Amino acid sequence: MNFCSNCGGRVHLQVPTGDDRPRHVCQACGMVHYRNPLMVVGCIPQWEDRILLCRRNIEPRKGKWTLPAGYLENGETVIEGARRETWEEAGSRVADLAPYLLFDIVYVNQVYLMFRAQMETPDYCTTDESSEVALFHETEIPWHDIAFRVMEKTLARYFEDRSVGRYPFRIRQVTRARQ
Amino acid sequence: MNFCSNCGGRVHLQVPTGDDRPRHVCQACGMVHYRNPLMVVGCIPQWEDRILLCRRNIEPRKGKWTLPAGYLENGETVIEGARRETWEEAGSRVADLAPYLLFDIVYVNQVYLMFRAQMETPDYCTTDESSEVALFHETEIPWHDIAFRVMEKTLARYFEDRSVGRYPFRIRQVTRARQ
Repeated sequence: MNFCSNCGGRVHLQVPTGDDRPRHVCQACGMVHYRNPLMVVGCIPQWEDRILLCRRNIEPRKGKWTLPAGYLENGETVIEGARRETWEEAGSRVADLAPYLLFDIVYVNQVYLMFRAQMETPDYCTTDESSEVALFHETEIPWHDIAFRVMEKTLARYFEDRSVGRYPFRIRQVTRARQ
Repeated sequence: MNFCSNCGGRVHLQVPTGDDRPRHVCQACGMVHYRNPLMVVGCIPQWEDRILLCRRNIEPRKGKWTLPAGYLENGETVIEGARRETWEEAGSRVADLAPYLLFDIVYVNQVYLMFRAQMETPDYCTTDESSEVALFHETEIPWHDIAFRVMEKTLARYFEDRSVGRYPFRIRQVTRARQ
């Protein structure tokens, strides 16, 4: 950040009065520009005993498999966001979203909130963002081709919980060292 | 948003190629500036059968009572953020944070994540942000002087759940009409 989005003046990193950490402060109008973590919302779409994965058609990790997820937008709830991303990335309508895993990914300032969700029908399709979309049995999951560690952890936890039939809500962390 | 924080050029609201909603796009360097919901993290600090409330020393709702909560900062986990806010606003150290309620407050683009938490000791104090901090029995809660509807809802749910001894994680919404 170099310039003030309000007045176009130069910003400097400094600790504002009454604050305890550096912020981008405009040297012209005095506006303080905060930067905060972003929320990513996504789904584990289920159809009977299979789950839906998308092969990424965009960077990063183009060609790798992932669960549908993306940035929460202004104007929507977390559940609406997770449903929208599942529609945009996988062409699938999901219902009965149950909050399942929250991941802190501190080194990129992101918070992931993943839901379990039921596909309303077994319909899905490729999209601009996904070159391939498919339902997988547990034994078919392409573990060595999962795009992101957060998705690998989500899938591993899901199948572990499924084996005992309980899906408690949990908070976990993804750290850089293991990415 | 009027100017580009990258180059200082003018930004216009327009739908970028491949996007489906208006964003602030720099007319000089082309950078797209996204705006996304902010996370607020907070606690219900418990000591034996009492809970800790803060009387706000700052606007909005100065003089009203609230639970400690504030914006999640870059570089911290949601649990670290909730503990920090409890320390900053109430001078209380909390442990054993259990995720409890998530509120979508769409009309202000905020997501609240509230934890149940145990106070490590019965110590607390006034702070820059709180003119008074005190432990309350359920019968002593100042229901007509709670600062924000999200906190009123959190407290009401907490005492309802406490009466049956179960605290399932839930997602709820706070709407403008009822604020």
